This record gives sequence, C-alpha cells and structure tokens, in this order.
Amino acid sequence: MKQIIILGSTGSIGASTLDIIERFPDRFSVLGLVAGTSDDKLEEQIRTFRPKIVALSDGVAAKRLRDRLNDPTVEILDGAEGIKDVACHPDSDLVISAIVGAAGLVPTLAAIQAGRRVALANKEPMVMAGQLMQDEAQRQGLPIFPIDSEHSAIFQSLSGHRREDVRRIILTASGGPFWDFTVEQMKAATLEEALKHPNWDMGAKITIDSATLMNKGLEVIEARWLFDCPPSQLDIVVHRESIIHSLVEYRDGSVMAQLGLPDMRTPISYAMNYPERVPLDPPPLDLWTYGTLTFYQADTQRFPCLNLAYEALKGGGTLPATLNAANEVAVDAFLNNGIAFVDIARVIDHTMNAITPQALTCLDDALEADRCARETAESCIHSLAS
Amino acid sequence: MKQIIILGSTGSIGASTLDIIERFPDRFSVLGLVAGTSDDKLEEQIRTFRPKIVALSDGVAAKRLRDRLNDPTVEILDGAEGIKDVACHPDSDLVISAIVGAAGLVPTLAAIQAGRRVALANKEPMVMAGQLMQDEAQRQGLPIFPIDSEHSAIFQSLSGHRREDVRRIILTASGGPFWDFTVEQMKAATLEEALKHPNWDMGAKITIDSATLMNKGLEVIEARWLFDCPPSQLDIVVHRESIIHSLVEYRDGSVMAQLGLPDMRTPISYAMNYPERVPLDPPPLDLWTYGTLTFYQADTQRFPCLNLAYEALKGGGTLPATLNAANEVAVDAFLNNGIAFVDIARVIDHTMNAITPQALTCLDDALEADRCARETAESCIHSLAS
Repeated sequence: MKQIIILGSTGSIGASTLDIIERFPDRFSVLGLVAGTSDDKLEEQIRTFRPKIVALSDGVAAKRLRDRLNDPTVEILDGAEGIKDVACHPDSDLVISAIVGAAGLVPTLAAIQAGRRVALANKEPMVMAGQLMQDEAQRQGLPIFPIDSEHSAIFQSLSGHRREDVRRIILTASGGPFWDFTVEQMKAATLEEALKHPNWDMGAKITIDSATLMNKGLEVIEARWLFDCPPSQLDIVVHRESIIHSLVEYRDGSVMAQLGLPDMRTPISYAMNYPERVPLDPPPLDLWTYGTLTFYQADTQRFPCLNLAYEALKGGGTLPATLNAANEVAVDAFLNNGIAFVDIARVIDHTMNAITPQALTCLDDALEADRCARETAESCIHSLAS
Repeated sequence: MKQIIILGSTGSIGASTLDIIERFPDRFSVLGLVAGTSDDKLEEQIRTFRPKIVALSDGVAAKRLRDRLNDPTVEILDGAEGIKDVACHPDSDLVISAIVGAAGLVPTLAAIQAGRRVALANKEPMVMAGQLMQDEAQRQGLPIFPIDSEHSAIFQSLSGHRREDVRRIILTASGGPFWDFTVEQMKAATLEEALKHPNWDMGAKITIDSATLMNKGLEVIEARWLFDCPPSQLDIVVHRESIIHSLVEYRDGSVMAQLGLPDMRTPISYAMNYPERVPLDPPPLDLWTYGTLTFYQADTQRFPCLNLAYEALKGGGTLPATLNAANEVAVDAFLNNGIAFVDIARVIDHTMNAITPQALTCLDDALEADRCARETAESCIHSLAS
C-alpha cells in the first residue's frame, strides 16, 4: 500500500490522481492533500479519501475548513510552512507535485531535500531551478518521475535503452489553437479562442501556454534537467493530433516513441506504479480510426515564445526563472483582459532584456529572479496599458 | 570481439550484416558464411572478410569455389550437413539466420540445439516450427533475437517494460504495391507491378509476399512464438510510409513504438550489439519532412492471404508449415509466370484444405508437412495451368 501526498489536489492533475487512487484502493491511500484557496473542493476530497494531513495556502480558507470539518483526525495546516510540512511528511511513498506555476517550487524542492520520492506534474520548478532540483535528487539517490505527458513519453522511451546511445530527444507539440493563424489573425486573437485547446482539457494557464507554444518551450527546459540532455539534443515537432506524446532518437537510427489517447491518467498512473502498469483499459488505440497523423516544423516566427525559451535555456543561470515569471504575469494579464495575446511574448522579451541574469547557486537566487521578473513584467504591462 | 556466422550471406540481409561488420572491425569478425549457389559472390566475401569456414548448398558450386580459391586456411563445406556444421560451429558468438524460405529451418534449429545464440532474419523457421524453436531456446536458456524490422520494433518496444502488462502487439504493414487496387485490377496484376515495393528494397520472394500481405500473415505467426503472445493479442495496422515499424499497447493505455527510416542495418545492428547501440548515424528522422503518416485497417477481402495466415495460426500444429510451403511454391510459380497473382491465395487455400493438420512434436513433423504441402501445391498449380 503506497501512501500518496498530492500538492495541488483540487486542480486537474489532482483530480485525475484521486481517480486512480479510488480505482485501486488496495494499492494506494491518501496521506496528505494540499490546495490553494478551494476549501469547498478540499473538504469534499477529505470526506472521500480521509487523509491524515492537509494544507491550504490561504489562511482564511483553512480556518473556514477547520470550522466546518471539526474532525480531530485530520490535521489542517495553512500557509507556505503548512504546505511544506505536508510535502515533507516522513510517511509518504510518493509526492505528486501538481501546483500550477512557480508556487510549486518551494514545497517540491523541500520534499526532495527531505528525501521524499517525487513525481512532477508542474514544470515550473524544473524550469526555475532544474539544476538545484536534480543535484538534490542525486544527492538523495532519488529519481524524479515526470508526469507531464511529453516527459512521461520520453521517460518511457528511454526505459530499457542506454542513455549514452541517445542522439536526440524530440518533444511533440499540438501547435495549439492558433497553429494555422496568420500574424494578423493572432493580433486579433481573443481570450475565448485561446482557451480552446484542440486535444487536451487542461487548466487556463497551461492552455494559454499551449497557444503561445511557451508550454513547449518550458517543457524543453524541463527535459534538459529531467534527462540531463544538452540543449543541442532537444528538438520539437508539431504534431496536431497529440497521439505521439514524444520521441527519443538513438545513434543507430532507431527512434522510440510513446503514443496514446490524450488521457493524463496514463502518465500519472505510470509514475505511481512504476515499473508496473495497472489496467486502466481505455479504448484501444486503433490508428486507422485517425487515418492520418500530421507533422510540421515548429514556426518560431509566429510563435516567438519558443525562441525566448531556447534563449533562456542556452543562457542558463537565473534566466529560465525570469522567463517563467514574466510568462506567468503576462498570461495572467491576458486572462484578465489586461493585454493582447501577442503582447505576452513582448512582455517576456522586455523582461528578459531588462534583467541581468545571475548564476543559480541556491533556491534564493531563483526566488529573487522570480520576484524581480514579476515586478518588471508588471510595470511593462502597466506601460502597455497606458 | 564477437565472432559472427551468417547463414545466407549473399542475400540482402547478409550484405547489410557484412556492411556493419566492415564498419566496426574492433567489435566483429566473420567466423563463417553460408550461401546457396552464388560461389562468385561468396568468393568475394571470403577474400574481404577471411572467414575460417564456409558452406554452399550446391556441391558443384562448392567444388568450383575450392578450385578457384585454393586456400587451406578456409574450410569449404557443402550440402545440408556442411551448412549445419557451419551453423553449429562452437566458436560463434552470434549466428545471423538469413536463409530465405523453409531451407533456413534445419540449420537454425540445429544452431539453437547446439547452444548457439541466434538472430533471426528469416521468418519461415518460426512459422514452420515456432514452438519447437522456442522450447529449444528456453531449454538452452538462450534468447532468439528478431531482425525483421517489425519484430525488432516489437522487441525494442517491450524492452524496459513488463511482459505481463501487454494488452496487444500491433504489427504495421506497408500494404504493398496493390493496396489501392480493386479486385479486378488485382486479377490483371503483372509480375513487374508486384515487384515494386513502395518502401523497402528486398528479395523477390518477400516482395511478392508483401504484395499479397502474406508477409504480414507470416510475421503475425512469427510474433506469436517470438513473444509468446496469444493470437487474440496480435493485430495489424496498414501504415503506408513504413516509418512506424510496429507497436506494443499496454494495459494502462500507453503504446510504445519503434520508428525509423527503412534501413535494415538498424535492426541488424541492434541484434548484433544488444543491449548497446552503435553509431550508424543515418539521416535524422524529421517527421515534418513526411508531413503525414497514414493508417488503414487491413482489408482481408482483397488480401485473402491474411485470413489464411490467421487460420493457420489459430489451427496450430503443422498448419502454419503447410501454409508456408504452399505459399513458397505458389510465389515461385508466380515469379516464373506459371500462375496469376490472385492464384497465389487460391493455391494456398486449396493446399490447406487438402491436407489434414497434425500435431507438431518434432522437426520431422514440420518437414513432412512442408514436403506434403509442396506436392499438393505443385499439383494444384498444374491443374490451374491445364
């Protein structure tokens, strides 16, 4: 019986993880849950899964939950320290790290430092502080399991083959809702259009990242650290149907790939059960029902975020943390109708140029870069609005 | 340094194997070579690769070679016993079994019985006597490495994953040159048309088998034994571009696949170097240069050979050996303009119906079924011609 902690249990990955736990009660139990402000949803999850410990980021929401639940068997913490306490709980067998955005970094790194086994669904910690995360995981002798569908595909395509024979890692990108848009059409793109992902049903932030292709850029940076792969060996192919989730090319010309219907339960359950697989028994993947799978070269002209991500990857140090924070602020502004779709890349570009990158030697370096980039991006957005 | 024996060195797989040996002289040396009647070609190979022992099926060709070569350092044998002696040579590290057709069975099984490590490029031994081959390999504690591109793809897609988690093995088929033909067009199909394979440059027999889809049928039977997989878990998808070489579907919905440009050196070198891979460095597989990959369900109406193969697989015993022999005779008749393309399936169907299948308990059962099917198929062809 594996004891599971979920950081970000009320989000989309959290819900899928709980679905798997519910299907296999003889394999898993919930030890701890962490959410942001959704005390209603967390309460429901507590009543169903009976965790020992939970935390809410928001202290007011945590108080409401304590009052309503009034259950001495469930410890309810709050704030950054409370989240860290749940993440580092010594009895866990696996911590599912699924807090959206930079907020996931501190508890995830803390869990690794505490010697906990981590499965990573949020890419931002690896983007902001990939080297620190991997150094710490190696010091602890613990692998970090990827849950993102592309990174799970790469992990599965590396399994059973030798790392030193890899020639190239190729991430697939759906191309998002604007793949066929001209530059002019993109300038007029609405929030509603941007939120329509062709294949995956995900949260708002990641859906916008898919529309700008920044999501793929962040994934490339994540892959660099997860698989210890130099930037020159990381490539992207746009694959509209999201059936091939990623590929690994070996030096003898062989290319291993992982495919599947778009269902996050497959990579989540793989990380939870590795090296075993449990019978989720989704519909069979009959490629003839698709007829064709289509592929394109990534277009960095119309999708400048991709270039910005490669620039951050090659620059290294705190530059990826700057990129990530500027992107979070810009996407947030777009979601709240503060800026146009094409302004997202402009805000990030401006922020990356305005801040001198530093070496990344500790968590504070990443957090300071994050804070500084947010400030710069915010003021850039203000000047765009005025 | 691995000492290699090649059964069928003057064929297409033999040539590719020697190409790999030539590229990696610090890894491989040629211990023995076996050919049918091509003493000229074999002489050239002997002068380049300096094997210790060779054999020709044809005694007259062997005598010519002995006279011309006049080299006491190379032992030149002939006939079935000579071939068996080379196949079983105690100093080999790997025997590449690449004799086309049923002729490969006796020396390949003899090599396994002698405790030699075998890599299998010819599918007929597994089709005729798969259970015997696998029982013997298991008794010896030796794996049989597949070289056929589809089976190598399956082997690679199983590597690093648990056999008990497999839900389905899916072989890809190019569909051959007649995939788009109507039944009427097939009736008028010429030998020249049938010899034009869309993607692979192979020998005549296997190219015709690709046109009838019997090649895929034989591969399904081969997969049944190579991977100990029940018929109900073996499926086919027609994939026109031959880029995805086969797939394995797991019970969590994950599908692993191996892809590559059509180059037999990749699967051959994988079997020779397993678990390592050597740098063959072919052009990168950039899927965007293809644009689309297409998939269809296999059509057993227009390609009745596929049904015949599944029938033989399910019937078991000596039925696959009967199917294989009737197919060899029928394809040979078609290659020599004796029968029409659509008669190939008719000859096989007639032969399978005419002979009562027996249990397969020893090599002689398979050889007797083979002999008997050849007789029946020959007389069927005569009656078609008259």
